[in-house]
Amino acid sequence: MQIAVVVYDRFTALDVVGPYEMLSRAPGAETVFVAEERGPVRTETGFLAVTADRALAEVPAPDVVVVSGGPGQSALMDHAPLLDWLRQADATSTWTTSVCSGSLLLAAAGLLEGRRATSHWLALWQLGAFGVEATGERVVFDGKYVTAAGVSSGIDMGLALLGRIAGDDHARAVQLGTEYDPQPPYDAGAPHKAPPHLVEKLRARSRFILT
Amino acid sequence: MQIAVVVYDRFTALDVVGPYEMLSRAPGAETVFVAEERGPVRTETGFLAVTADRALAEVPAPDVVVVSGGPGQSALMDHAPLLDWLRQADATSTWTTSVCSGSLLLAAAGLLEGRRATSHWLALWQLGAFGVEATGERVVFDGKYVTAAGVSSGIDMGLALLGRIAGDDHARAVQLGTEYDPQPPYDAGAPHKAPPHLVEKLRARSRFILT
Repeated sequence: MQIAVVVYDRFTALDVVGPYEMLSRAPGAETVFVAEERGPVRTETGFLAVTADRALAEVPAPDVVVVSGGPGQSALMDHAPLLDWLRQADATSTWTTSVCSGSLLLAAAGLLEGRRATSHWLALWQLGAFGVEATGERVVFDGKYVTAAGVSSGIDMGLALLGRIAGDDHARAVQLGTEYDPQPPYDAGAPHKAPPHLVEKLRARSRFILT
Repeated sequence: MQIAVVVYDRFTALDVVGPYEMLSRAPGAETVFVAEERGPVRTETGFLAVTADRALAEVPAPDVVVVSGGPGQSALMDHAPLLDWLRQADATSTWTTSVCSGSLLLAAAGLLEGRRATSHWLALWQLGAFGVEATGERVVFDGKYVTAAGVSSGIDMGLALLGRIAGDDHARAVQLGTEYDPQPPYDAGAPHKAPPHLVEKLRARSRFILT
């Protein structure tokens, strides 16, 4: 089983490191970080680069596709090299997945039309334009398409998908091994839980990023 | 404020990407990934490399130190270049922190003697030999020393520390931006919650890794 994790300039690291940490522990899985070209790919903060060990063209038929989100996504919404690859990989994939605004790239590639999907709460509204039923859920399974909400939700997506791939017992063992027993020190991780002034602050800021 | 994230061969990615995703969003913070030498550093799975943008010697006095855990930790317990650097950086740091078995490196450097600290649940027992009071808590603050339990606990540590550094309101905004509202699909993330046969399985496997 080959898992292709797709990154690009200005992706968000946790979007894909969450699923990687879960899915790469499936028995017999080979995980490969891919980008348009091989080499270091830097996150939106500029502080972290991960290595794309393979170019997209070198990984034509992965079993599992994981597409990152991040501020760099908006520059790729009609970028043929990526969207063509997504369509090609999806043609033979067992699972096609995304985290955060990565679902907008799947949608732009036409892969989510008529399906239910999720995205970062600030990006959800953009799914409708692609014929996608946007849900506010944290993880959405619709057939072989699995989408996760913002950034950290990729951990939940990865663990849920690991359960489908390798069985509940294996997934529980990985949860135990990664000590995934979250205890956030605050309870502001969703717009309906956070103080309204913070929701407004992020919405205002996102107008410059997302539109 | 400079945040140094310490990685090494066979580190665990989520250990440090969790804290990075939280702490790098502190106002005015510069985050730098460091290793003994500059260049790509690969995780224990072999599937992911992150770039160390600086060598340890180039980052002599960070304000915040974050030490990764991972299977590679056990080879470094008397590795002078790393332990000497930890002692030097700690001499002027505001916060000295670790995730997972990274606390064993802080302990080996002599930095946790007489203090309370945590680690991956499978590594906790090793802290006692260094005069450290091991707790099973997920995040432990003791003075300027902050230690987190296994792998994913670095997210909670990073968010809690961000609150101390940048204030609760800022930390809540980052929690909202990263949509950190965890909903694990299983409840097996700690040894007292997981099925006993999985706890035993991981303990048995760890004898070969940790001793």
